Amino acid sequence: MLIHSATQLLTLAGGPQRGRDLGRLGIIEDGAVLIRDEKIAAVGTSAELRAAYPHEPRLDADGCVVMPGFVDPHTHLIWAGDRAAEFEMKMAGAHYLDILASGGGILSTVRATRTASIETLIAQARSRLFRMFSHGTTTVEAKTGYGLQTATELRLLKALLLLEEESRLDIAITFLGAHAIAPEYKDNPQGYTDLVCETMLPILRQWWETHAPERRLPFVDVFCENKAFTLPQSRQILQTAQQLGFPLKIHADEFDNLGGASLAVELGAASADHLVKTSDADIAALGASDTVAVSLPCTPFGLAECHYTPAQKLLDANALFALATDCNPGTAWNESMQFVIALACRSMKLTPAQAIAAATINSAHAIRMADKVGSLEPGKQADILLLSVPDYRHLGYRFGTNLVKQVIKKGRVYSVDVGYYRTA
Amino acid sequence: MLIHSATQLLTLAGGPQRGRDLGRLGIIEDGAVLIRDEKIAAVGTSAELRAAYPHEPRLDADGCVVMPGFVDPHTHLIWAGDRAAEFEMKMAGAHYLDILASGGGILSTVRATRTASIETLIAQARSRLFRMFSHGTTTVEAKTGYGLQTATELRLLKALLLLEEESRLDIAITFLGAHAIAPEYKDNPQGYTDLVCETMLPILRQWWETHAPERRLPFVDVFCENKAFTLPQSRQILQTAQQLGFPLKIHADEFDNLGGASLAVELGAASADHLVKTSDADIAALGASDTVAVSLPCTPFGLAECHYTPAQKLLDANALFALATDCNPGTAWNESMQFVIALACRSMKLTPAQAIAAATINSAHAIRMADKVGSLEPGKQADILLLSVPDYRHLGYRFGTNLVKQVIKKGRVYSVDVGYYRTA
Repeated sequence: MLIHSATQLLTLAGGPQRGRDLGRLGIIEDGAVLIRDEKIAAVGTSAELRAAYPHEPRLDADGCVVMPGFVDPHTHLIWAGDRAAEFEMKMAGAHYLDILASGGGILSTVRATRTASIETLIAQARSRLFRMFSHGTTTVEAKTGYGLQTATELRLLKALLLLEEESRLDIAITFLGAHAIAPEYKDNPQGYTDLVCETMLPILRQWWETHAPERRLPFVDVFCENKAFTLPQSRQILQTAQQLGFPLKIHADEFDNLGGASLAVELGAASADHLVKTSDADIAALGASDTVAVSLPCTPFGLAECHYTPAQKLLDANALFALATDCNPGTAWNESMQFVIALACRSMKLTPAQAIAAATINSAHAIRMADKVGSLEPGKQADILLLSVPDYRHLGYRFGTNLVKQVIKKGRVYSVDVGYYRTA
Repeated sequence: MLIHSATQLLTLAGGPQRGRDLGRLGIIEDGAVLIRDEKIAAVGTSAELRAAYPHEPRLDADGCVVMPGFVDPHTHLIWAGDRAAEFEMKMAGAHYLDILASGGGILSTVRATRTASIETLIAQARSRLFRMFSHGTTTVEAKTGYGLQTATELRLLKALLLLEEESRLDIAITFLGAHAIAPEYKDNPQGYTDLVCETMLPILRQWWETHAPERRLPFVDVFCENKAFTLPQSRQILQTAQQLGFPLKIHADEFDNLGGASLAVELGAASADHLVKTSDADIAALGASDTVAVSLPCTPFGLAECHYTPAQKLLDANALFALATDCNPGTAWNESMQFVIALACRSMKLTPAQAIAAATINSAHAIRMADKVGSLEPGKQADILLLSVPDYRHLGYRFGTNLVKQVIKKGRVYSVDVGYYRTA
């Protein structure tokens, strides 16, 4: 199939974009892309490709912007229940302790998730995946982490594998047994850390070989923050994971600077995520590394806070910078990477071009999938968006709605336009 | 038709909600609403209405939240072109003067609008109305104001009348010839003020009687700000309009406090809008009046500014408080009242219930249509939303996507769910 007549075809070609190089969209005016066998076979101008492939079935992009599908490299996709009442309490001025006393906070999601069947978990995550896809996300990272006990964490993994089988998206799976201290270990965080290292991770290794032998090992992630895992505990977990062969990620500097970002660099983690209170030394370490700095602006937005990732400093330090939704029930229930882009432009003074690169090729690199997705280049998966806009800058400029018209996943075309039709 | 089995039916009954009374949703659990002849005929529990109307055709709300359609009381719906490139320049750090020098700012939209045909204007506004409707807005206010010359302002009015005829929404029309100083009067703002008063408004009065004799007169609005219209000029325009019989609105205190809000109160305007830099005296005046304080949080968000309407002070002062999108090409191209609610909760510490009331019954009052729309009460228009959520608090809590499943406008049901279907 030949998609042609794109006002602008954004290729994002040339690999991940480091530091001030961020924002190279590789624009082809009146562009076209040829799809064969679920993959991109050629990219060029409409005139070139129509001449070279005169008998190819055609899809007229009709003045749309055409670009790679979004890659969302940090989500907590799978949980049960919601925390809408807690949100209302927060807006009404309730303190953190009031919310905890009323049974709120992350542990309320852990309770709901532990008691949910795998069918319930899948049904609730499915609707979120559906929303992600209809907003243009074609590859998503998804973490466990609302189990905090071996059996539930494995149920979440199983649910994620089943979801990927049924859904149209690629799902990069991450094990986040170290998302918080399990309630049973409230007064013994080191005990829970040891449980993760001595029981969960070895079981995970075996479980994966039985249940997903053909897949790459999942990432192992840890929440390195006050009230969660200290820097030494984070190191213990990540080093144990690394010895078992797992690739690494880290949640660092969301609320306090504990040194998690530099730990991620030291251990060669694929990414360090959040990075709000990151120190200049940590920024320098990221800039000299291949660890991607993943910013999650929906989290401060969701919490009505005004501190965001120091994106400009990270770019100045030559870091690899990416964006993600952090979709989760506590701080940021948003499935749309388009909103992340609009928010990132305003909160971190990125240009639309920089935010788009951070949401495609660089976010693909944050989950080590930039060889397969994140750009329109021959040999890559045909994951492509048609946007109902005359210029790519409408991403960022406009906010609050969905600008995607069609999503192409592995060469198959899905219409996702917001439509209305009379039913009664 | 009987809509039944709403998890929560939000009636918003009882009229506009003043001050700390804001947020009375009038929730009926397992609620139902009876529609007859485009209007609401009865509201109650599902058990009550099923028993009273056993033979009525039914629509199962199936666990959805059911509520009145959103009323968006401040938009600049009709313009030509976009300012996406200007947005990129702003994010890259360009100064206001650079943007003006490159041909940007409101006058670039005025140029594009003046040269656009009525067909072009209608086509571009149509897509925005479509987005508004699919996000649950069933009644919208729409202003002229990108003409700044009599002929173009009248073309915009004509376009709005035609758009209402073809669209499903109710459109409350506002004449905003005094949106900015026309470029021809750059050095003579008083000359343009006199033109509005002596030529535009009298012509508007006659034109309306010819073109829309059956309709209420439109609102007349003025942009009372430094670099736009001074307080005396604003008074001159609004008083002239009032003498001609027009109801009034004002843009006040977006960037500077000139006293526009108190002027609105003095003249009995339907609303004073923006209200960011509003003084305590102006807040007190609003609180003692029937002029609705309309907050437009997308504007500071769109501009990446951190000052929002002092909503809590307005509520403490007993003001009527409402929310709107301010949808426009310069500062806030967003069509979704759901996003306004999510942003209002975070930026002004409103609860979801307060924001919902401000986006329905109170915003209806801001365009003096609370007798017809904005709540689910017998005799009102059957403008109703079904939301795919288990609890109304998901409005506010969640952001960036569309939670509306079906929109009912004057009793007709439209499905607007984000869907995807394979097309190739």
